[in-house]
Amino acid sequence: MRMYDIIAKKRDGFELSTEEINFFVGGCTTEEIPDYQISALLMAIYLNGMTDREIYDLTLAMAKSGQQADLGGIDGVTVDKHSTGGVGDKTTLIVAPLAAALGVRVAKMSGRGLGHTGGTVDKLESIDGFKTTLSPDEFVRCVNDVGVCVIGQSGNLAPADKKLYALRDVTATVSSIPLIASSIMSKKIASGNSCILLDVKTGSGAFMKTPDEAYVLAEQMVKIGAAAGRKTAALVTNMNIPLGYAVGNSLEVIEALRILKGEQTDELYHLCVELAANMLRLASEKPIEECRVLAANAISDGSALRKFEEMTAAQGGDVRLLKNTRLFKRASGVHSVRSKKSGFICHMDSEKIGMSAVILGAGRTKKGDSVDHSAGIVLRKKTGDYTEQGEEIAVLYTNNPSSTLQAESVYLDALTYSNDKPDKPPLIISSIMG
Amino acid sequence: MRMYDIIAKKRDGFELSTEEINFFVGGCTTEEIPDYQISALLMAIYLNGMTDREIYDLTLAMAKSGQQADLGGIDGVTVDKHSTGGVGDKTTLIVAPLAAALGVRVAKMSGRGLGHTGGTVDKLESIDGFKTTLSPDEFVRCVNDVGVCVIGQSGNLAPADKKLYALRDVTATVSSIPLIASSIMSKKIASGNSCILLDVKTGSGAFMKTPDEAYVLAEQMVKIGAAAGRKTAALVTNMNIPLGYAVGNSLEVIEALRILKGEQTDELYHLCVELAANMLRLASEKPIEECRVLAANAISDGSALRKFEEMTAAQGGDVRLLKNTRLFKRASGVHSVRSKKSGFICHMDSEKIGMSAVILGAGRTKKGDSVDHSAGIVLRKKTGDYTEQGEEIAVLYTNNPSSTLQAESVYLDALTYSNDKPDKPPLIISSIMG
Repeated sequence: MRMYDIIAKKRDGFELSTEEINFFVGGCTTEEIPDYQISALLMAIYLNGMTDREIYDLTLAMAKSGQQADLGGIDGVTVDKHSTGGVGDKTTLIVAPLAAALGVRVAKMSGRGLGHTGGTVDKLESIDGFKTTLSPDEFVRCVNDVGVCVIGQSGNLAPADKKLYALRDVTATVSSIPLIASSIMSKKIASGNSCILLDVKTGSGAFMKTPDEAYVLAEQMVKIGAAAGRKTAALVTNMNIPLGYAVGNSLEVIEALRILKGEQTDELYHLCVELAANMLRLASEKPIEECRVLAANAISDGSALRKFEEMTAAQGGDVRLLKNTRLFKRASGVHSVRSKKSGFICHMDSEKIGMSAVILGAGRTKKGDSVDHSAGIVLRKKTGDYTEQGEEIAVLYTNNPSSTLQAESVYLDALTYSNDKPDKPPLIISSIMG
Repeated sequence: MRMYDIIAKKRDGFELSTEEINFFVGGCTTEEIPDYQISALLMAIYLNGMTDREIYDLTLAMAKSGQQADLGGIDGVTVDKHSTGGVGDKTTLIVAPLAAALGVRVAKMSGRGLGHTGGTVDKLESIDGFKTTLSPDEFVRCVNDVGVCVIGQSGNLAPADKKLYALRDVTATVSSIPLIASSIMSKKIASGNSCILLDVKTGSGAFMKTPDEAYVLAEQMVKIGAAAGRKTAALVTNMNIPLGYAVGNSLEVIEALRILKGEQTDELYHLCVELAANMLRLASEKPIEECRVLAANAISDGSALRKFEEMTAAQGGDVRLLKNTRLFKRASGVHSVRSKKSGFICHMDSEKIGMSAVILGAGRTKKGDSVDHSAGIVLRKKTGDYTEQGEEIAVLYTNNPSSTLQAESVYLDALTYSNDKPDKPPLIISSIMG
C-alpha cells in the first residue's frame, strides 16, 4: 500500500477502504508518512469530504493510535460530557459534580486552555492544591469513592489526532466536519466512557459559525458514537455571547460555585441543568422531564455543591476556598471598563472577549505557556442589556497592569450597540437525543 | 502576508492575487515556506483550479525564480520546440537541424530521460564526444555559427518549478492543467526564445490520456506564451503508439539519421516536417503550406543532414558515426521477441514499452542514474500490422542479459491483438496556430 495512491483516490473523490485509513493513521503515528503527504490528503479530505464509514474508520484508528483509558474498574455507568470549546464555558465545573450527585459516574479527562477558549484543567488548578494528574488507578478509585473525578488528558491519548491537528492548524484544514468530528470523537472513544454527551457550540466564539453547521457536526459525532457502541447525544448551544458573567480561571470557579449554591439562576444555570439531565438520561434511560427535575433538585438541596467539595478534597484541593470564595487569591490590578455610548448591547463577539482575557493573562497563546489564575473579566452588561454612556460594563482583573489598555480596547471592540432592544437568541438551539 | 491565508483563499475557491502568487513562489525558492503548506496549496489548486491570470502569474514568478537565459546575442529569430514527453520521441534530433537548415535559429535546452520517457541530452551523448554542457557564451556562439545548438538544462532554470515538481510527484498533484502548463512554460520562458512550438502528446505514453485534455493543456500553454510576449503554437499528437521504430539512445540517433537521409518516410517523418514547418512559420510568418514544402525539401536536398553534422562537429561529437552508423557501439546482447499469437496488433501501451527499454538499461528510474547508450528496442511490428504466431515483432538490445526476460514480458504485455485490422488513428490530432 502506498500513501501516494491513497491521496490520489481521495483527490478523485473515491471512498477510502478501512485498510487504507488504518495505513494512513498508522503512518501518522509512527511518523513514517511525511508531513507533505499528510497535508495533501487533509486538503483532499477537506474539499472532497468523507462518507460516514470513512469518518468512523478514521475516528477508530485514531482512538486506537495510543493509550486507551480502561474504566472497567468503575462501578456504574460512566458518562462523558464534551464541549467544543467556548468563552466563559465553566459548565464542566458545575455539571460534573451535579451529574455525580444524580448517581452518574463522571470519569472526565479535560484539556487546558488555548487561544481564546479556556480549559477546565486550568480552572480547577486555580483551587490551591487541586491535583489534575492522577495515575489510572487513583483516577478509578476517586470515581468509585466520590462519583466524580476530573483530570488532565494523558499525553498519549490519540497521538495520531495530535499529529493531524498540528498539521491542520497550519494548512487551513481545521474547519472540516469529517476532520473535526473524528478528532473529537477519537479522544472521547479512547477515554473509555460508555455514554457521551456533546455540547456543540455555534456562533462568534466557536468553530461552527452557524447553527446549521453545528447541527451537522453534532449529528456526525452522534453517528460515530453510536457506531462505536457508545450511547451518544448532543446539544447545539449558542456561543454568540459568553456563558455566564465570568471569563478567567478562579473567576469562573467562583461563578460555578454561585450556580451550585443556587445563587445564580440565569441561562448558565439552565444550560447546566439541561446538560446534567441529559447525562442522567443517557445513563438511566429515565424520561428527560424527570431528569430535569432531579437535576434542579440536586442544586437546591445542596447535594451537587457537596459533590464538588468532596471531589476537591479527594483531588487535594483546599475546600476552604469553596466555602469562602474571598480566600481565592485576587489579582493586584482591577480596572473598570465604562461604556463609550448609550444603547442596547445587541452583539458580543465571544472570540474577542476571550482574546481580551488572554491579554490580561488568563489564557495562553501557545502550548506550554503559564496562565495567571486570578486574571480575567467579569461582565456587568451582556447582549440585550441597556447601558448609559460612562456606565460600568465590565471589570478587568490582571497582575500585569500594562496589559489593561490593550485588553480594554479589544473588549470594547467586541461590542455592537443598537437603539432598540434586540431579540434574545435561545441558548439551547437544538438537541439530538441519540 | 501569510501562507496560511493563501491556502485558505484557494481552498475556498477564490482567485489569488499577483502579490500572493509571488509570495508563494518566492517562499518556495528560498525554502521559507514548509513543504506541508506547499503541498496543501497544490492540492487546493489541483481541486479548485486557477484562472488564466493566476496561471500566467504563477508561470512568470517561476520563470523569474532563477537564472534566465539571455539569447540577445543571437542574430535572427530563435524558436524553441518542446514535447511533453513520449516514448521513442526523437523529433528534436531531427527537427532542430531541419529548422536550422530553413534559417530558423534553434537555441535549445533539453532534458535527460526519467521513467518511461527518454531525453534528448542522453540521446545526443550516445554520439562519442558530443558535449551538452556549454557556457552561455559558447552556446550563443554555436547558434550564430551553425544555426543550431542543443545543450542540457542549466541547474538553476526555474528552481521554484523544480521544488514544486518534486512535491507534486509525491502528493498526487502532477496531472493538473494549471500546474503542468505553468511548469512547462516557466522553463520555456526562462530559456529566452522569442517563439515556442509545443508538441503536446496524448495517449497511453503521455500525461494527458485523451485528446480533449491534451487540447485544453495546449490551449492553456499557448495563452501563457502569448501573454508573456512569445509567439506560441501547439500541435496535439498521438502517443498511443511509440514514435518511429527505435526506443533507446543510440538506436534513436540512428533512426533520426535515417529520416534526415530521406531513407524513412513514415509518420515520424511527416511529424518532423510538420513541426519544422510550424517553427519556420512562427519565425517567418510564411504560409504553413509553403513552410511544409521548404521543410520537405531541406530533407531531400541533404541540407538538414548537413546541419546535424555541423552541429555535432561544433559540439565536439564524432561525425564519422553519423556517416556510418555501424560505428556506434552495439549492445552485447541481442534478443528477438516473437509473437505469442497471430492477429493484428490493435494497441501498444507506449508507457509499458518505455518501461521495457528502461529495464534493458536505456533509461533511468531515478535522477542521477547512468544510462546504457546502446540499450533499447527496435520495433518490427506496430499498431495496425498483422503478425503470425512466432514471428519476430521486436528486437531487444542490452548489455545486461539478465534483464532480457523481464523486459520481454513487459513488452509482450504492452500489446493488444484483434482479428480485424484496426483503424489507424491520425498522428497529428489537432493544432493551435497561436
